[in-house]
Order: sequence, then C-alpha cells, then structure tokens
Amino acid sequence: MPRPKGDHEARRRDVSEAVWRVLAAHGFGGLTMRAVAAELGASTGLLTHYFRTKRDLVAHALDLLERRTEARPRRAAGQGLAAVRAALLDILPLTDEATGSNRVWVSSWDTALADPGLRADHARRYARSRDKLCELIAEAQRLGEIAPGDPERLAAGAQAFVLGLVVQALLDAPAFPASRQIRLVDDHLAALTPDGRGANGG
Amino acid sequence: MPRPKGDHEARRRDVSEAVWRVLAAHGFGGLTMRAVAAELGASTGLLTHYFRTKRDLVAHALDLLERRTEARPRRAAGQGLAAVRAALLDILPLTDEATGSNRVWVSSWDTALADPGLRADHARRYARSRDKLCELIAEAQRLGEIAPGDPERLAAGAQAFVLGLVVQALLDAPAFPASRQIRLVDDHLAALTPDGRGANGG
Repeated sequence: MPRPKGDHEARRRDVSEAVWRVLAAHGFGGLTMRAVAAELGASTGLLTHYFRTKRDLVAHALDLLERRTEARPRRAAGQGLAAVRAALLDILPLTDEATGSNRVWVSSWDTALADPGLRADHARRYARSRDKLCELIAEAQRLGEIAPGDPERLAAGAQAFVLGLVVQALLDAPAFPASRQIRLVDDHLAALTPDGRGANGG
Repeated sequence: MPRPKGDHEARRRDVSEAVWRVLAAHGFGGLTMRAVAAELGASTGLLTHYFRTKRDLVAHALDLLERRTEARPRRAAGQGLAAVRAALLDILPLTDEATGSNRVWVSSWDTALADPGLRADHARRYARSRDKLCELIAEAQRLGEIAPGDPERLAAGAQAFVLGLVVQALLDAPAFPASRQIRLVDDHLAALTPDGRGANGG
C-alpha cells in the first residue's frame, strides 16, 4: 500500500530538520549521510531515497540555509541611512538564532570553495545581497545621509566589513559582544556620512 | 637498525608538505589521514606514527598554516598610513600564493568553530594580528595621517573589513580582481584620514 502524500511530505520535513540540526551542531565539516541518519534515528539506506550522493545532501543543506536566512525576522527598516544600518545589523550574530545561522554560513564557505558549481552559487548569492545594499546606499545618498561616491564601491566595502565582523564575532564571542558589533557598524557608517556622525545620531 | 636522525626529519618534512598539498587542494574539509597518506604514497598506518588522531592532524595543519603565513614575503612597510596599508594588502589574495593560503585560512574557520580549543587558538591569533594593526594605526595617528579616534576600534573595523574582503575575493574572483581589492582598501583607509584622501595620495 503506497503511503499517503502527506506522510511523504512530513518525512521530507523531518529529514530537512535533521540536516539543519547536524549543520548547526557540526557545520558542513560534520555533515555526512551517517550523521543525518543518526540524528533522524533512521538507516543510511533510507537517506539515499532523499539524497543520492553526498553532493545532493550538501546542495540541499545550502538551499535550506538560504531559505532559513530569507525567512528570518528582520528589523523594521525605515529608509535612507537607517535602512542601511538595519540591513547590516540583520546580518550580524546579535542573537542566538543569528549566531547559529552565521556559524552555518561561515562553515559553508569551505564547502563552496571546494566545488566550482557551489562556489558560483555562493558568488551569485553574495552579489544579490550586495546589489540590495547598493540600492539602499544610493537611496541614502539621494536623501543626503551618505556622502557622494560610487554606491557599488560603498556596498562592496560595507559587505566585506560586515562579513569579516561575523567571522570575528563567531571566533571570539567574548571580545565581540553585541554592543561592540553594533558600535563597529556605527563607526563604519559614520565614516560614510557627510558630517561623519552616522545613523545613530552620534 | 635505527634510521639516522636526518632521515626522520626529512620524513617529517615530507609529511608536512603532503598535509599542505591536501589543504591547498581540498581545504580542511578534505583533510583526512587517508588523503594525506595517498598524497605521500604511504599507508595510513605509517601516518599514525606522526598523528595519533585526526585532531592531531588538524592541529598540525593549523600550525603549518600559521608558520607559512608568518614566513610569507611582505611588502616594504614604510611607516604611518603606508605601513597600515601594507599590512592590509599583505593579507589579501592578490597573488596565487596568497590566494592559496587564504583559501586554507577560510577553510580553517569551520574546523575552529567545531572545536572549543581550536577556536580559542584562532581567537588568540586574530587578537594578536589586531594588536599589531592597532599599533600601526596609533603610529599613523601620531603622525597626523589618520584622524583621532580609539585605535582599537579602528583596528577591529579594518581587520573585519579585510577578512570579509578575502571571503568575497575567494568566492567571486572575477568580481574582485586585485585592482578592485586594492581600491576598496584605499576607500576604507581614505575614510580614516583627516582629509579623506587616503594613503595613495588621492
């Protein structure tokens, strides 16, 4: 007797959640068919119904990471410089949930660098996020809240800054509490404003 | 008959070089006893004379990465803002060799995040590098080439920026050729100078 479709989808969700728990605990370095099967309390054989190869499993994990990142709660954005600030703060590991998700992103870089196809996917993801940042910066420039200058260069600089800050905060949480991360973002933004005072009003 | 000591050291060097080649090609995600043994043309059994566990192998790889980074050729530093600029450019993947080494660094983050001891080692490494940057920035401030402000905050910001730029350049080399990486560093430094023109004279 074939199982009803609802069962199949519920099972698929269970599998995805097991993949996420393995990622959150061990990163991509610990993502194996065996680890997911153990997390699920199932056999490795069952898992091959969902992922034929390790690469399929990794691709699913990257999709999952992207979907969870897109679905995460975000700050009320406002507009102009405030919207740029909100977009940068949304990326940082300021909460436990954002820390977990960032830990998986950082871990994904090694995986992406080892596979040209996955690397190209990642390059596209970051280019899209840079484009969004660029639009917000251009809008803040129109409002006179960010000094003139090529908004693409400012976006690339801000994105680099915030990604590196993620790395530092994850590797050295005691040295980079939320308050310090926010202060560093405000320093970065202050340097972009016409009067050097930044989004938080100085 | 015991082998002479010279042989033993030569063998140890061979092992280290095999570890490095595996890292450069596959990152920490691909660093296994089996991969190093294959690279060395030896048995996994022989390798256990050098590394009792996978963790010993990873710790050796991290030491190797640090030693190779310390021994790399550096720019003539000059002083003041020029020295800050040289220190930042020395980190970036502007050459094939620096690209390989950075690829291994980025890969090491996943490994470090999965192990509290290795993570603490990494936190210390980056704190040391931040301290050096802080001294250079303070010196540039004394020379009037960087505007006043807490040099520790400026160093943390510059380090975050340059690490994130490494990530972007590795994931998307076509979008971040050396010329663009250098321009972004000069943008970052220009924002720190009293007249906003930066180290390259504007």
